[in-house]
Amino acid sequence: MLNVTFLGTSGAVPSAYRAMPAIALKYDKLFLWDCGEGCQREMMRRGIGYGGVEAVFITHLHLDHVMGVFGLIETVRMNTERERITIFAPRGFTRMLAGISPTMGWEPSFLDIREMHEGELYRGKDYSVSAFPVKHQKKEAFGLVFQEDDKNKFHEAKAKKLGLKGRMFREIQEKGKLKVGGKTVKLEDVSWVRKGMRVVYSGDSAYDEGVAKIAKGADLLIHDSTFGEDLKEEATMRGHATAKEAAKIAKKAKVKQLVLTHIGARYKGPELEAEAKKVFENSVCAKDGMKIELKPEKSK
Amino acid sequence: MLNVTFLGTSGAVPSAYRAMPAIALKYDKLFLWDCGEGCQREMMRRGIGYGGVEAVFITHLHLDHVMGVFGLIETVRMNTERERITIFAPRGFTRMLAGISPTMGWEPSFLDIREMHEGELYRGKDYSVSAFPVKHQKKEAFGLVFQEDDKNKFHEAKAKKLGLKGRMFREIQEKGKLKVGGKTVKLEDVSWVRKGMRVVYSGDSAYDEGVAKIAKGADLLIHDSTFGEDLKEEATMRGHATAKEAAKIAKKAKVKQLVLTHIGARYKGPELEAEAKKVFENSVCAKDGMKIELKPEKSK
Repeated sequence: MLNVTFLGTSGAVPSAYRAMPAIALKYDKLFLWDCGEGCQREMMRRGIGYGGVEAVFITHLHLDHVMGVFGLIETVRMNTERERITIFAPRGFTRMLAGISPTMGWEPSFLDIREMHEGELYRGKDYSVSAFPVKHQKKEAFGLVFQEDDKNKFHEAKAKKLGLKGRMFREIQEKGKLKVGGKTVKLEDVSWVRKGMRVVYSGDSAYDEGVAKIAKGADLLIHDSTFGEDLKEEATMRGHATAKEAAKIAKKAKVKQLVLTHIGARYKGPELEAEAKKVFENSVCAKDGMKIELKPEKSK
Repeated sequence: MLNVTFLGTSGAVPSAYRAMPAIALKYDKLFLWDCGEGCQREMMRRGIGYGGVEAVFITHLHLDHVMGVFGLIETVRMNTERERITIFAPRGFTRMLAGISPTMGWEPSFLDIREMHEGELYRGKDYSVSAFPVKHQKKEAFGLVFQEDDKNKFHEAKAKKLGLKGRMFREIQEKGKLKVGGKTVKLEDVSWVRKGMRVVYSGDSAYDEGVAKIAKGADLLIHDSTFGEDLKEEATMRGHATAKEAAKIAKKAKVKQLVLTHIGARYKGPELEAEAKKVFENSVCAKDGMKIELKPEKSK
């Protein structure tokens, strides 16, 4: 199971109701995608233990996406037994840290800073987190993908009927086929491929069909929706998307669900949701504290 | 009238109920004393317009007192017509800013950075904000004072009875006495001195009788109370005060009211308030969003 919690859903400037951008993903471990100002407190308010953060991924270095990470580091250092925390961030982060670090109490070894790049960033037991470049002003900016591995799952009844038992299951999985009682059984005859769960986050991004390619068939697309179509030109100029544009990407990519986030301060939310739904029905505008639970397919 | 709003009342680490340290003072202008992470959002939640901030005073450079200022600067720059914002902070702040500023959009002229020092920092129309050094670990750390000027106020009835009218009021104030109808009238015969309001904030400070001297007769003392007497040694070691110590300072200084703040995460608040009240009755433990309205004396 993969739990996605929206810790902050505002864009650029917070409001009384929306904190700065941050998303928590809990699979076997806990990851943060962006870490805007106030993130550690939102984690506390939403019952997400900050001590368990395996890695923080910062999509780009605009202040609203990164300013929560320094306080989080301090809190983890002071209040937990953790010896290290990993942060993936674009070039420039180490310079920010150099300015701030004399004020912090951590040893250099406490931080494992990795430069964000396109491709796989983190490999888990049966999943990966990777990044892809997006179009956002002149900043180096990335989107993120959580990809669970595809898995072969046996049709137990079929397999037993064909005589498979014990270590034969492993053998057929390794060889692709197996002789059982004189007959050749192919792996595909007794199994199906469970597609791994896929979550794609655009970070801050203008309308970009490249994002649709990356998001192809994703279980969940989390997309920039700083503006509505009423301010489409401003959106493009500022390197952000409108709700309708986000929905177009979702439709093109045939994702299962779209969540609009990075909501501009002039919008309440429902009007952006309505705009998106006209293009892509399964759209929802994120709220702070919203949780989405993704479950793998049960059977085929 | 002077309004004091407690925007954040935690110490070091926030909690679901307490934001990082920040206090808003509204007199003719708006001032921030410390600006912990999340301060701008707390201002929005408490109905305090961030656009009106005249100056921010950072008592010391521990992260919990300063990390909100960068986001606040960005928001003021993006969302208001302001051309400048003034920040008083200890040495080292410009280095922090140098690390972060390439990520921010402001022109150097937007920020008016002043180095914090002992003595008067800001002069208003009839008040001043000044700083005094406090004992807090090895950091350069300050407390702050808001001091309204004392004013001569006329006893209107007495003055009229003795024949004062029109510009005589200004004249007697300037000269100290005046001949009216052959008789000499002294200023003190027709007037009284209205003591200016005084608010003293210890910042982060261990028990220090120097603070009591500064706070002498203050209308309001806002004091570090990170710990209770149960952890008195830890308090001293870490350069913080206990609730009882804060109360001792309040008693020594004969202030009108004590507010405990910078509440450590292990305390709820009421237990610290009870501890302080045993020594100094008019003690209260701050809560986020708490407002205190100070009014000048009406007459004597």
